[in-house]
Amino acid sequence: MNIIMLSGGSGKRLWPLSNEVRSKQFLKIFKLPDGSHESMVQRMYREIRSVDPGAQVTFATSETQVVSIRSQLGDEPGISVEPCRRDTFPAIALAACYLSEMKNVAPDEPVVVCPVDPYVEEDYFRSLEKLSSLAGADTETNLYLMGIEPTFPAERYGYIIPKSEDPVSEVLTFREKPDVETAKRYLSEGALWNSGVFAFRLSYLLRRAHELIDFRDYQDLLGKYESLKKISFDYAVVEHEEKIKVLRFHGVWKDLGTWNTLTEAMADPVSGNAVAGECENTHVINELQIPLVALGCRNLAIAATPDGILVADKDKSYKLKDYVADSSPRYEKRFWGEYRVLDCRKNESGENSLTKELVIKAGKHISYQRHLHRTEMWTFTEGEGTLILNGEVRLVRRGSFACVPVGAMHGLQASSDGPLRLIEVQIGDELTEEDIERYEWPLQGDAQ
Amino acid sequence: MNIIMLSGGSGKRLWPLSNEVRSKQFLKIFKLPDGSHESMVQRMYREIRSVDPGAQVTFATSETQVVSIRSQLGDEPGISVEPCRRDTFPAIALAACYLSEMKNVAPDEPVVVCPVDPYVEEDYFRSLEKLSSLAGADTETNLYLMGIEPTFPAERYGYIIPKSEDPVSEVLTFREKPDVETAKRYLSEGALWNSGVFAFRLSYLLRRAHELIDFRDYQDLLGKYESLKKISFDYAVVEHEEKIKVLRFHGVWKDLGTWNTLTEAMADPVSGNAVAGECENTHVINELQIPLVALGCRNLAIAATPDGILVADKDKSYKLKDYVADSSPRYEKRFWGEYRVLDCRKNESGENSLTKELVIKAGKHISYQRHLHRTEMWTFTEGEGTLILNGEVRLVRRGSFACVPVGAMHGLQASSDGPLRLIEVQIGDELTEEDIERYEWPLQGDAQ
Repeated sequence: MNIIMLSGGSGKRLWPLSNEVRSKQFLKIFKLPDGSHESMVQRMYREIRSVDPGAQVTFATSETQVVSIRSQLGDEPGISVEPCRRDTFPAIALAACYLSEMKNVAPDEPVVVCPVDPYVEEDYFRSLEKLSSLAGADTETNLYLMGIEPTFPAERYGYIIPKSEDPVSEVLTFREKPDVETAKRYLSEGALWNSGVFAFRLSYLLRRAHELIDFRDYQDLLGKYESLKKISFDYAVVEHEEKIKVLRFHGVWKDLGTWNTLTEAMADPVSGNAVAGECENTHVINELQIPLVALGCRNLAIAATPDGILVADKDKSYKLKDYVADSSPRYEKRFWGEYRVLDCRKNESGENSLTKELVIKAGKHISYQRHLHRTEMWTFTEGEGTLILNGEVRLVRRGSFACVPVGAMHGLQASSDGPLRLIEVQIGDELTEEDIERYEWPLQGDAQ
Repeated sequence: MNIIMLSGGSGKRLWPLSNEVRSKQFLKIFKLPDGSHESMVQRMYREIRSVDPGAQVTFATSETQVVSIRSQLGDEPGISVEPCRRDTFPAIALAACYLSEMKNVAPDEPVVVCPVDPYVEEDYFRSLEKLSSLAGADTETNLYLMGIEPTFPAERYGYIIPKSEDPVSEVLTFREKPDVETAKRYLSEGALWNSGVFAFRLSYLLRRAHELIDFRDYQDLLGKYESLKKISFDYAVVEHEEKIKVLRFHGVWKDLGTWNTLTEAMADPVSGNAVAGECENTHVINELQIPLVALGCRNLAIAATPDGILVADKDKSYKLKDYVADSSPRYEKRFWGEYRVLDCRKNESGENSLTKELVIKAGKHISYQRHLHRTEMWTFTEGEGTLILNGEVRLVRRGSFACVPVGAMHGLQASSDGPLRLIEVQIGDELTEEDIERYEWPLQGDAQ
C-alpha cells in the first residue's frame, strides 16, 4: 500500500500547545502499555505498519516538520517537502510526482491519501487497505473516498451524499459544513462525513495535475511551487469527478483538531507540574516550571506552555482562533536542540533584551553565524562544548562565560558526551530571528 | 483615634497572588477615579485619615511587610514589628506596649484594633470612631466589639450572640464557625458576625498582657517574643471578659481573604497580558509575560504569577490551601528592588542552576555579601551602576558582564539616574537564599 500522509500545520486551534513549528501531531499524548507515550504520527505509522508491514508511507509536509518526523519515525518514511504551504491539491500533486519519480511507484499502482490527525483504531487502517485495493482493481472508477458514518449531526464536517446504503456506493453529491438542523436532515438521508481520505491510481492523479498545473516533472513543480494557487483537493479534483465512489466506515474516528476532541483522546487528565482538585471532565497540561492548581473546574481544557496559557470551556474551544493573537513562538525545537524564551523586555528608551535557555544536543552544533544588531552573552550551565569566536576555538563548560559582540562570527558545538546548556542574554536594538547570516561550519569532524 | 491595624500574612488562601513576602493587602486592586490603583492598606489608611485626620495608625506586623508599608504609605504610620508570628494576642500586647512607650499614648486613651483586610466603606470608619469613643467614655466596660449584621448564614465566621437588639448591647456569648444549618439558627436568634474589631482603654490591655505574660516593658517583651505561646486575642482575652459589649454595624463588610470575595472587590475583571472571551463572572490576573486566553469560562478565578497558575471555581476557592504545596517564592520585592526566578534546573548529576532577573532601584544597593556554594554570573541589560568585587570598584552598564566566584565579596549599587537591571545565573551545588553572609557596605555616599 502506498500512503501519502498529509501533515499540515495546526494553526491556532490547539494553541498554546501547537504553534507554527511545533504541531499537534508530534505531541506525545497517547499512553502505551509500558507507560511511555507516543504521538499521533507515531501511532498512525505504527498501526499502518502493523496492518501492512510493506506499506510505503510518504509524508507531504513543510520543511519545519522534517526534524520532528525524522526524530520520531527514523529514516524510513519518505518526505515530500513543500517549499511553502499551498493547500492540499498542490501538496498531493507534488507528493504524487515524488512517488512516481523518486520512489518509482508504477502509474497503475493505487495511492491512498489521508490526513495525519484523526484518532482511529485498527479497523480504520484495514479500511484504508480496502480502499487501496478498490482503487487499484476498479478501473471504471477514478476516485475512491472514505465516508464516516456520522454519530451526531456535526456542524464542523463536510458531508458526502451516497446514492445507496451499500458498503461501496456511487457518490450523488457533496455538502459544505451545515448548521445543526441541516446536518440532522443529512443524517436522515444517509449522508456520511467526509474524512479527507482519497484513493486513486497514480496515473490518474498525475494526469489531473498536468491538466491543472503547467509543469514538466517533480523538480520543475518544486521550482514553481511558490507561484501555485492555493486550492484544496476537494475543490480542484473531487467535486469535478464523475467516476467517484465512497466506501463506508463505521468504526471509531475522531478529528483531533480542537481541544475538545484532543482531550478525549488523551491518556492522562493531568500532565506536568499540576494538581487538579475536585475537577470534572477537565484536562490539564503544564509544560512550565511554575506549578499549576486547578480547583473545582468543570469541562475545561487548561494548557500552559512557554507560548501561552489557555483556560477554555471544551465546548467553546473550537472558537479559539478568534482569540489568539499572532506572536513569535517562545519555544522551538531545532535540528541542533531547542530553545525557550525566559524573558523579553523593551524599556521606554527602546532598549531591548531577550533571555533564552538553549540546549544543544550531544555532538550537534548551531550554524556558524553572525548578527548585525545584537550582542549575545552566554553563560554555560551544563555540559561541555566547543566555541568558535572570530576564528578562535576554545572549550567551554558549566560555569564558563562568553560574550559574542555585534558582527562577530561564532559557532557552538556540544561535546559528544552530552547536551550543552546555556543561558543567552541578547542585547541590541533589534532582536529578531531574522537578524542572522549563516556561514559554512569551519571545523573538521562535524558531528552533525 | 488610636488604631492598631493587624496586618498578617495571607498564607495560601490567595495563592499564587500572595505569598510569604507579598501579601494580598499590598496588591493594587482598587481603581481610583483617576484610573490609578490602590491597595487594601492604602484604601484603609486613606479612609481612616479622611474620617479622622488626626488618627494615629500603628501596624502590627512582621519585618517582611515593613518595606511594603513604607513604600505604600510613607513614614507616617507607626509599625510595631513582631520578630516572628505568634498569633493575635502577643501581637496586640506588643503593639500596646509600643503605643504606650514609643508613642506616649496615655493609659486611659482608647485603642481600636482592626484587621487590615476587610472590604468596607466610609460608614465602617465612622463606626470605628464610635467604638473608640464608647471604649474611652464607658469605664464600666472593659472591651467593646464590633458585630456585623449577617447577610447570609456564613460558615466561615465566628458569631457573637448579643443580649439585646439595641445598637450597643451586652454580649451573651460567642459561637465558633458553624455549619450552614446552625448558622441559620444563629441568624434567627439575632447573632452577629465577629469582625475581629476590638476597642479598649490602653491600661486595660496592658494589665491583661502583664497578667498573661511575664515581662517588664516593650524591649523586654520584644526580646522574649519568640518564646511566647501562639494564642489568639479571642481565646486569650475576649472569651474570658465579663464586662464586654458589642456595637452593631450594618454597612458593607466583606472579608477579602478568599478568591471569591477578593474578586468581588476587584475593579477590573481582566488585568495583565490576558484576553477573556465569552466568559461569565470570571476574573483573570496575569502577571506573566506569557499571554493568557480564557474562553467560555464561568465563575472562575484565574491568576498567573511567577509563583504559580491558579484556575479555580470561585465557590470552591476557600479550599485552596489544601492543594497548594509549600515552595519558595519565585518573586520577591526587597528594600533594594525586586527579583523574579526565570528558570531553575537540577540535572541528574545533581548540578544546579538558577536564573533570575534582578532590578535594583535607582540609588539603591544589595547588601555587601558573599556566597559559599555558588558562582553568580551577571549580565547587565539596563541602566548603570557600581560593582564592588573583592574590594575593587568598577562601573557596569547595559551590556556589561561580571562573574562573582564562590566566596568573593561583592556588592552592587544602581546609579541615581535610574534602575539597574540584570540577568543572574547562579551555578553551584546548593542554591538557596540562606547561602549568604552579609557585611557592612564598604562605600561612602551610601544612597540607601
